[in-house]
Amino acid sequence: MATQPTRALEAVPNPHPERAYTVRCQTPEFTCLCPRTGQPDFATVTIDYVPGPSIVELKSLKLYLWSYRQEGAFHEDVTNRILDDLVATVEPRQMSVHTDWLVRGGITTAVEASYP
Amino acid sequence: MATQPTRALEAVPNPHPERAYTVRCQTPEFTCLCPRTGQPDFATVTIDYVPGPSIVELKSLKLYLWSYRQEGAFHEDVTNRILDDLVATVEPRQMSVHTDWLVRGGITTAVEASYP
Amino acid sequence: MATQPTRALEAVPNPHPERAYTVRCQTPEFTCLCPRTGQPDFATVTIDYVPGPSIVELKSLKLYLWSYRQEGAFHEDVTNRILDDLVATVEPRQMSVHTDWLVRGGITTAVEASYP
Amino acid sequence: MATQPTRALEAVPNPHPERAYTVRCQTPEFTCLCPRTGQPDFATVTIDYVPGPSIVELKSLKLYLWSYRQEGAFHEDVTNRILDDLVATVEPRQMSVHTDWLVRGGITTAVEASYP
Amino acid sequence: MATQPTRALEAVPNPHPERAYTVRCQTPEFTCLCPRTGQPDFATVTIDYVPGPSIVELKSLKLYLWSYRQEGAFHEDVTNRILDDLVATVEPRQMSVHTDWLVRGGITTAVEASYP
Amino acid sequence: MATQPTRALEAVPNPHPERAYTVRCQTPEFTCLCPRTGQPDFATVTIDYVPGPSIVELKSLKLYLWSYRQEGAFHEDVTNRILDDLVATVEPRQMSVHTDWLVRGGITTAVEASYP
Amino acid sequence: MATQPTRALEAVPNPHPERAYTVRCQTPEFTCLCPRTGQPDFATVTIDYVPGPSIVELKSLKLYLWSYRQEGAFHEDVTNRILDDLVATVEPRQMSVHTDWLVRGGITTAVEASYP
Amino acid sequence: MATQPTRALEAVPNPHPERAYTVRCQTPEFTCLCPRTGQPDFATVTIDYVPGPSIVELKSLKLYLWSYRQEGAFHEDVTNRILDDLVATVEPRQMSVHTDWLVRGGITTAVEASYP
Amino acid sequence: MATQPTRALEAVPNPHPERAYTVRCQTPEFTCLCPRTGQPDFATVTIDYVPGPSIVELKSLKLYLWSYRQEGAFHEDVTNRILDDLVATVEPRQMSVHTDWLVRGGITTAVEASYP
Amino acid sequence: MATQPTRALEAVPNPHPERAYTVRCQTPEFTCLCPRTGQPDFATVTIDYVPGPSIVELKSLKLYLWSYRQEGAFHEDVTNRILDDLVATVEPRQMSVHTDWLVRGGITTAVEASYP
Repeated sequence: MATQPTRALEAVPNPHPERAYTVRCQTPEFTCLCPRTGQPDFATVTIDYVPGPSIVELKSLKLYLWSYRQEGAFHEDVTNRILDDLVATVEPRQMSVHTDWLVRGGITTAVEASYP
Repeated sequence: MATQPTRALEAVPNPHPERAYTVRCQTPEFTCLCPRTGQPDFATVTIDYVPGPSIVELKSLKLYLWSYRQEGAFHEDVTNRILDDLVATVEPRQMSVHTDWLVRGGITTAVEASYP
Repeated sequence: MATQPTRALEAVPNPHPERAYTVRCQTPEFTCLCPRTGQPDFATVTIDYVPGPSIVELKSLKLYLWSYRQEGAFHEDVTNRILDDLVATVEPRQMSVHTDWLVRGGITTAVEASYP
Repeated sequence: MATQPTRALEAVPNPHPERAYTVRCQTPEFTCLCPRTGQPDFATVTIDYVPGPSIVELKSLKLYLWSYRQEGAFHEDVTNRILDDLVATVEPRQMSVHTDWLVRGGITTAVEASYP
Repeated sequence: MATQPTRALEAVPNPHPERAYTVRCQTPEFTCLCPRTGQPDFATVTIDYVPGPSIVELKSLKLYLWSYRQEGAFHEDVTNRILDDLVATVEPRQMSVHTDWLVRGGITTAVEASYP
Repeated sequence: MATQPTRALEAVPNPHPERAYTVRCQTPEFTCLCPRTGQPDFATVTIDYVPGPSIVELKSLKLYLWSYRQEGAFHEDVTNRILDDLVATVEPRQMSVHTDWLVRGGITTAVEASYP
Repeated sequence: MATQPTRALEAVPNPHPERAYTVRCQTPEFTCLCPRTGQPDFATVTIDYVPGPSIVELKSLKLYLWSYRQEGAFHEDVTNRILDDLVATVEPRQMSVHTDWLVRGGITTAVEASYP
Repeated sequence: MATQPTRALEAVPNPHPERAYTVRCQTPEFTCLCPRTGQPDFATVTIDYVPGPSIVELKSLKLYLWSYRQEGAFHEDVTNRILDDLVATVEPRQMSVHTDWLVRGGITTAVEASYP
Repeated sequence: MATQPTRALEAVPNPHPERAYTVRCQTPEFTCLCPRTGQPDFATVTIDYVPGPSIVELKSLKLYLWSYRQEGAFHEDVTNRILDDLVATVEPRQMSVHTDWLVRGGITTAVEASYP
Repeated sequence: MATQPTRALEAVPNPHPERAYTVRCQTPEFTCLCPRTGQPDFATVTIDYVPGPSIVELKSLKLYLWSYRQEGAFHEDVTNRILDDLVATVEPRQMSVHTDWLVRGGITTAVEASYP
């Protein structure tokens, strides 16, 4: 039971830095709180990137996404913050973060932010 | 029971105005009246945009779409009017509104209008 | 534009009253108001029955379901009322009414009531 | 171009009359006219039966279903008539006819009649 | 029962002629006769266009498509003729007509013609 | 922001206690913690019941399910506890609770408990 | 290239003859010729059985089904013959053979025969 | 029973040679033999083309594809040969042939060849 | 890297032994070797049971299923052996094991064994 | 039982080297071990290429992919290695290798590498 949510993403060296290839990581298990009502929100998060010197370490990504569980976060803001944190950690050639949120008030929302 | 349908859309400041990212809002709960027959029509409305200074406040979007419930509206016209109203309110970099209407007379229709 | 919502269901004679056969009528176009919040609710309504002396006249069924558009109605109550009204009008051998409601507060509900 | 729609169903001898096995014939290509409005209606027809002395000859079934193309026919009535005609021709141990009609006035209907 | 199939398409003024937006009309209810065998063919028809001065009046479109019901028509020809008739009537900026035909001889066919 | 997770389920009077009809409530938004690892688990919860004197008040059901968010709970145990709490509150004629859990260690699990 | 189509089914001993368990074998690769027109027909064949002393050897089943490739066979007849051949070879406690045929003349057919 | 498999494709005049429109013909009923093992292979064949002076006559296409039934043919080779034969017969502006083969050794293959 | 495949299933006490409820465990990650050819086979394994005094410990189930990875196993035999091992370990009131195998020689197989 | 996993890919001459056509090979049967935990990982592998002088011999591809079964391999590394080995063997004009991995820690990953 030692694992805990943490904001610390880890990078590991890209085994094939000479080639521009793509990686997709996707999870339907993202949840945070609505900053206005304090109630839970749920999203599927999809990360697509072309690695530069590093790739994302998957266990640290899991713990990083878990760290939003009890935090208030607007849909548009959290998507951009996940992108910023991942870009700072793994320095990709390109990256996009896409979030698909479950329905609230009859409306579903999706946000996608890209680097560069 | 204070909430009421209203034509007043609200904008809130874009938390990441420096980046061109996309937002999609979608609802299967749009209904208005056919101007020719007075009978109910039903549509799924999808709004895609790249925010400028503002983003759409979701509760005001819900009340805005609700405001068409007892109003006669042609498919082509209402799609363009929703686009015009949203553009005027949130001043997006780009926006499109897509409406998918349930079958009438054996024919389904869909309309998509874009800005700019 | 003469058609109007109306609570008056009509029955027409069953062309094959000697045989116990089944009829299903289904529409995704049912909408009423939430009695607590006054906001619109949406449902798919499915009616299955074995006709007795009569069958449901479809245009009157359309106008009948439309008549709930501006009325407050609890999910459990409206399902039972539709069943009661249809049973009173067409005197079926058997009938069930099933309603599937779009998500509210993250929860979808469905109600099914049967006669006898 | 010799083939023509015809109401004459044909039966051919059942090659395994000693066993109670099932046959399903299904077509999405049934169309007739609405007796009230004169406009076309469309249905998928599904026939399930346990053959007795005969099975349905498929080309005659195709021509038989085609024969309704310019005829007015209520959903409930045509389903029972197809069943009656097939039962009279092939004398099955059991048979059911199921029709699924495309949406009219926002409502889809389905009818199923069985013998015996 | 006054409505009848008719080749006369109608145009109504485009409510937003200043904007290049798209309209899609789609129906699974198209049927005509095979010119070689005289037997019925069935297709889904999809019309996509960017309106110019006019939009298609939907009831006239329904009656127009119905007018092929008893007419022999090759798949490739009828698709181009529908396009030509619609272009002549509504003078669109762009238009395409797509037809998807049910299987004959184990082969499904689809045809798509575009203007300009 | 006044709403908070709470274990207090509420019942409201059944509007049609004379009839044995069914109600289904379903949400994909259930999350709790794994008692062994402390990490989040996610499930879709489906509740089917035949109401007795009461029906479940939906907002209280939402807050009740939310109350498990930071609590350790085994799949088999939490399913039975939700059933027990609901049975105690609404005294249904019959009820079942079904939980479908997202994959852990390559294995998905589902649990279903019924009353009586 | 030694393998050839053959009508010789093989049985191998059931490893668990003490228990009544079920086996399903399914293939979308069945083809024979229409006895009336000589043209190819195609079907998915599904075999469900409860083994007795033996189970079907899969390679012999593949060669057996292949042996119909250049043979004329009515849908109803071939289904019953496959059942008879398999029952004679593996002496099952129960068995059913289901065939789903690709569309001919706009009609799809399916046949299911069972033992005992 | 006069029809026989034949390698002779036929072309008929294009009814609208002035316009560059597209035609798709697709069948799941292609089968040939593996040149290495002699065993049957199965594929779905999709032909997309922009007609020039001619279009493919569908019955001749059916008989042409049937002609491979007892012939050994590698996936890559047969796809290119079908393309070559069709191009030689109908002289299209553009054409592609796509084949999707059922699984062999756990691997599905697909081949697509285009002209020009 | 301490975890290793192991045939040792573990049981943990059933938290609600007084109630007959159901548990389903399902994984698409089962693989063993074909006893005839030595080549890999792949299956989805589904276990449904009504617990008695114990429930299956999921990590031990994962290691147990992994233990077949380098072992030759016939489809019918391995299904019955998994059932026998699970019944011996958790002493369920009822249990079934269902295996769905990927296609070999054009044929997919599925096996289901039940206790008692 | 002579076949064994092997790293030796084989090429056979391209029967149509004059044309740039595409070939896709896809299998859901790839499995290797996680280098960190030693536990099995599972992926669907998709190879798309435009052949040059050679095409991939399918049986050697099957044995090649099988050779990873007991080897530790990171998702990003194995994808690039498969691409490198295939490029070295068949010298394609273009090639991409795509791997879709089953969920681990709630996250699915996919990797795609391309040549040149």
